[in-house]
Amino acid sequence: MIVVMKPRAAQQSIRAVISYIEKNGLQVHLSEGEEVTIIGIVGDKSKLSTENLTIFKDVDHIVPVTESYKLANRKFHPEATTVRVGNTSIGPGSLTIMAGPCAVESEDQLMCIARAVKAAGATILRGGAYKPRTSPYSFQGLEEEGLKYMQEAKACTGLSTICEVVSLEAIEAAVKYVDMIQIGARNMQNFILLKEAGQSGLPVLLKRGLCATIDEWLNAAEYIIAEGNPNVVLCERGIRTFETATRNTLDLSAIPVLRTRTHLPVIADPSHSTGSYKYVGPMAKAAVAADADGLMIEVHNDPAHALSDGPQSLNFEKFMALTSELAPFCRLMGRKLGEEGI
Amino acid sequence: MIVVMKPRAAQQSIRAVISYIEKNGLQVHLSEGEEVTIIGIVGDKSKLSTENLTIFKDVDHIVPVTESYKLANRKFHPEATTVRVGNTSIGPGSLTIMAGPCAVESEDQLMCIARAVKAAGATILRGGAYKPRTSPYSFQGLEEEGLKYMQEAKACTGLSTICEVVSLEAIEAAVKYVDMIQIGARNMQNFILLKEAGQSGLPVLLKRGLCATIDEWLNAAEYIIAEGNPNVVLCERGIRTFETATRNTLDLSAIPVLRTRTHLPVIADPSHSTGSYKYVGPMAKAAVAADADGLMIEVHNDPAHALSDGPQSLNFEKFMALTSELAPFCRLMGRKLGEEGI
Amino acid sequence: MIVVMKPRAAQQSIRAVISYIEKNGLQVHLSEGEEVTIIGIVGDKSKLSTENLTIFKDVDHIVPVTESYKLANRKFHPEATTVRVGNTSIGPGSLTIMAGPCAVESEDQLMCIARAVKAAGATILRGGAYKPRTSPYSFQGLEEEGLKYMQEAKACTGLSTICEVVSLEAIEAAVKYVDMIQIGARNMQNFILLKEAGQSGLPVLLKRGLCATIDEWLNAAEYIIAEGNPNVVLCERGIRTFETATRNTLDLSAIPVLRTRTHLPVIADPSHSTGSYKYVGPMAKAAVAADADGLMIEVHNDPAHALSDGPQSLNFEKFMALTSELAPFCRLMGRKLGEEGI
Amino acid sequence: MIVVMKPRAAQQSIRAVISYIEKNGLQVHLSEGEEVTIIGIVGDKSKLSTENLTIFKDVDHIVPVTESYKLANRKFHPEATTVRVGNTSIGPGSLTIMAGPCAVESEDQLMCIARAVKAAGATILRGGAYKPRTSPYSFQGLEEEGLKYMQEAKACTGLSTICEVVSLEAIEAAVKYVDMIQIGARNMQNFILLKEAGQSGLPVLLKRGLCATIDEWLNAAEYIIAEGNPNVVLCERGIRTFETATRNTLDLSAIPVLRTRTHLPVIADPSHSTGSYKYVGPMAKAAVAADADGLMIEVHNDPAHALSDGPQSLNFEKFMALTSELAPFCRLMGRKLGEEGI
Repeated sequence: MIVVMKPRAAQQSIRAVISYIEKNGLQVHLSEGEEVTIIGIVGDKSKLSTENLTIFKDVDHIVPVTESYKLANRKFHPEATTVRVGNTSIGPGSLTIMAGPCAVESEDQLMCIARAVKAAGATILRGGAYKPRTSPYSFQGLEEEGLKYMQEAKACTGLSTICEVVSLEAIEAAVKYVDMIQIGARNMQNFILLKEAGQSGLPVLLKRGLCATIDEWLNAAEYIIAEGNPNVVLCERGIRTFETATRNTLDLSAIPVLRTRTHLPVIADPSHSTGSYKYVGPMAKAAVAADADGLMIEVHNDPAHALSDGPQSLNFEKFMALTSELAPFCRLMGRKLGEEGI
Repeated sequence: MIVVMKPRAAQQSIRAVISYIEKNGLQVHLSEGEEVTIIGIVGDKSKLSTENLTIFKDVDHIVPVTESYKLANRKFHPEATTVRVGNTSIGPGSLTIMAGPCAVESEDQLMCIARAVKAAGATILRGGAYKPRTSPYSFQGLEEEGLKYMQEAKACTGLSTICEVVSLEAIEAAVKYVDMIQIGARNMQNFILLKEAGQSGLPVLLKRGLCATIDEWLNAAEYIIAEGNPNVVLCERGIRTFETATRNTLDLSAIPVLRTRTHLPVIADPSHSTGSYKYVGPMAKAAVAADADGLMIEVHNDPAHALSDGPQSLNFEKFMALTSELAPFCRLMGRKLGEEGI
Repeated sequence: MIVVMKPRAAQQSIRAVISYIEKNGLQVHLSEGEEVTIIGIVGDKSKLSTENLTIFKDVDHIVPVTESYKLANRKFHPEATTVRVGNTSIGPGSLTIMAGPCAVESEDQLMCIARAVKAAGATILRGGAYKPRTSPYSFQGLEEEGLKYMQEAKACTGLSTICEVVSLEAIEAAVKYVDMIQIGARNMQNFILLKEAGQSGLPVLLKRGLCATIDEWLNAAEYIIAEGNPNVVLCERGIRTFETATRNTLDLSAIPVLRTRTHLPVIADPSHSTGSYKYVGPMAKAAVAADADGLMIEVHNDPAHALSDGPQSLNFEKFMALTSELAPFCRLMGRKLGEEGI
Repeated sequence: MIVVMKPRAAQQSIRAVISYIEKNGLQVHLSEGEEVTIIGIVGDKSKLSTENLTIFKDVDHIVPVTESYKLANRKFHPEATTVRVGNTSIGPGSLTIMAGPCAVESEDQLMCIARAVKAAGATILRGGAYKPRTSPYSFQGLEEEGLKYMQEAKACTGLSTICEVVSLEAIEAAVKYVDMIQIGARNMQNFILLKEAGQSGLPVLLKRGLCATIDEWLNAAEYIIAEGNPNVVLCERGIRTFETATRNTLDLSAIPVLRTRTHLPVIADPSHSTGSYKYVGPMAKAAVAADADGLMIEVHNDPAHALSDGPQSLNFEKFMALTSELAPFCRLMGRKLGEEGI
């Protein structure tokens, strides 16, 4: 942490800052430049609320020099992490495709979709049983019944499974039926849920909040890992910007940025970010080329009649075509697509 | 809901759309213009997932013509709502000031602050007992112990009280000790929490999410009201933009926009939005001039040693000066400041 | 400028940075903390492109400690500036209202509006003769003919006048006819135009770009002042955010932020920022309460038939009512409204 | 254009809207739904300023149904355009790489870079001679002298050349020396410059403004084409968002969106958008996978000593490695890289 003083700061002001820091058990390193004086803080910063220093007289601003996340930080864990999910895994060398409907609508629907996505190369079945919807009057999901269908689909196809959770109750149900839980964008800073997910024992897919910075996202991951659960996978799913031509703006630059900051795997969701099936293919390829460890793609047997997110869902034919097109991109990136990635 | 077809859409495509709508039990109203054909949907839209129509051949886009929120909508409830909170109220004719520390730190601290904000004209004491913090290593609040101090402060000063809740457990505790609960920005779309807040019986202060549109915010309010709890107050607390000179960007235009869309009271939080005590005064006055029903302001006995949000907290002297300056603005706006506003 | 090295940076990397700095004729101030080493750069930073240091091995990031604008910077010019415009002025102690049509449409229209805004208390007449429009097929303005009408309106009413310029040709015409020129939001970083405005000799109203940070805005002002023209007034007119309920988001917090960073006057434009006449009144009052030095408001004799920006224009009755309502707010803020007598 | 009336709009209000439309020589198509009445406008909309209708009593909102750009619109020009630039071209079937320094610094520097980028597969040499810089105190470019070096570099290497223009003067110089001109992000809505570029006769690379929507961008292209110059290439170079980990956010989704809206070629600039050489490679590959027609990449012989944008520039070795890695991605996308693409 560095305290930058205003030009021509009074000696008295400088002494006040130093005194405050030292009283809190830390040391200072003073640097008096031609224009400004800079005070470095040395020692265990958890001992003081450094932001308070901005109130001190003649203080211009405070510069943090270290990130607040440690367990998720690549600086301290240089090796890339591989996260095991059911009988597959996410990480270096493989390209994991999670596919399935936005919402589980019925046993038949899910089974039919599960078979199709398996045939096309997906290794994880996604399906929403607890749906966070903007309006209280929209379909909210089948809840535990939906999870049971997920379990059956797993039994039939061998696919691993993932389901979004929105509450402790949902986590407790998910633990019984699926292989991985997802924290959605709207709950990325629901810290209670993050802690509960950390205690669940299941691997967690953590979606980026719509207006979360990469640093806030990694701090959210830290909440989960700090509970003893290191199996966190990040999912870039678009951020909110002024552009309305797509539902959100898929921030693919986040992938190489994350590679430098964290050891956790990162996947991309071209369905939710773009909001239109027309853009899913190009963005899926782009994500693979940007070195994503996986993709989450919405697939539906009959998008025109989907209860949720029909416009962005691929039908079976389109999904099959997409995975075929993705295969050579995976090879170029040194990643195995689908089952071979185990 | 209006379906706008592409220029030169095939008759077959138009018939497919009409057929889909009619099969779902709705009627259409066809309008064939020189350039484009438009299909209006007449009837109960909850019967079909209209967004799916965007996938149909030759459909250009879909235009919603009615809002998804009803209970929070001014169109159906033209009279402004007044929300009762303990022994005060929020709504037309009064300017309610909620003041207090970001976090309850100790009994002494809270009592000392409660007396000071009461003396300066606040009628509701705020104080965080459950703190949602970006980093898991930051101070997380005193929890139920903090709520007890709030209750004591109320007993001593007669102030009504408000506390943020982050979980069902926190709501259950809050019901025992405080007069109003707050849903914070990060939980604005934690729909489970919204429903639980709706069932709590307590009035709810609903802060706007950092990247929530006004429509999403009103839909979040709808979640609470739909549970049978009409006592919702909205709080504009800044949105996330590209500008970093302030912590967030206080969107005061939201106040007149909300006046046209909803009957719910709306207050502003100049402390969290700006992130600096220096900007709290001008933004508080501006909010009153923009016709806010109240203000939430952070006040601390010793900002330099606050455990949370010190830089944006006013000390007693500054807060007292501010309420004095606000008084004539309130009179201009036809609002009573403080206790008389009941 | 501070160079923050990565944790455990090699001594060789540190030496490379120091060597680069010293070769460029600057000195370093080394600070070796427990976690990180920090290298302060002392001397005339214009001698090296410090951003390049981010490429050096083991460099984590670079922290600027001083602003790049000097002439616009309050640190070096603590007194607030008053800018003279024709026979009025903008600055401390007065609230200057610029009002008039978005576009000058005809001599009659302008004269009629000029008389009305004068009667209501405006001291500067605004009117666009060169219109930057998103589409090439929209009305582009009367150009020099429009400026002549502005001159006539001034002769008749005594109002000072302002007109937007979009090119050197427009500036050359404006110099002949009006008292102040305006650089619009879309041209805020048209550096050629800024320089030409700086050389024009006329006072300049510099609108904030839709996605300009406050620092970029002040750097744009610096371009004008650096040409020898200190008469710059800043105009906050809304920034682009994700919210679409208003055309842009009026960032009133920018006013108190600017007060700490610059000595230049700052006004607000509630018409362009909100895009709707319904929101102009509340936002005008809020801007005055936030300590703006003036307002720019669009007024039209017949908004329903305006050639440009009709929806956000006030008719005469509404404008007259607004200035009456603003008067007591001005008194509260210690500012005189209107009145040529400065 | 559709006018959506408020629920329970008075018949008188509806008649007023209809009357206004008909008086302007247009027809209406009335649709009275259960909840709302909708009025479609039929005929040549250029006859009235439809936005004004929002002011009419009981009007809820106005919905545009057609885009304002025609010449750039794919609806009316379904075939993809190929733009010829010197002795190469940009469009379907080829992947055009524009590479070179941010700023032309000297004859030697440019010649050395030109040879290196040519050897690595670039077909267009970029080099800034007129630099729009945030601060007036930063290096502003060699101007016409720089353009002469571009011409020499072309003579020696056979590369086609592109240079940013910021004024009519710069365009007049560019016409003499280079093959293509660039309108930068900050000037995307400098409509005077767009018109002058349209009259220059040279192909134009139009960069997206930092906060420009795709529709505004296409309207800017329309300004150029409307002057009789159809040779416009679009360049996505990042938009401004809240995320600061990269300089801007490269919006690759814009590429597939543009494919549906326009026939113009589109390239991506991974250098300016990310601001760091570390992220250029992954984003270049992602752009190719998203079906970009080309890339603009900053290359410098000695990034650590570059006068501008050193941190984001690739050195020769890295650029050569990147083009080698890009080659198989191009083949997958059915595009030829470099000279063969003619």
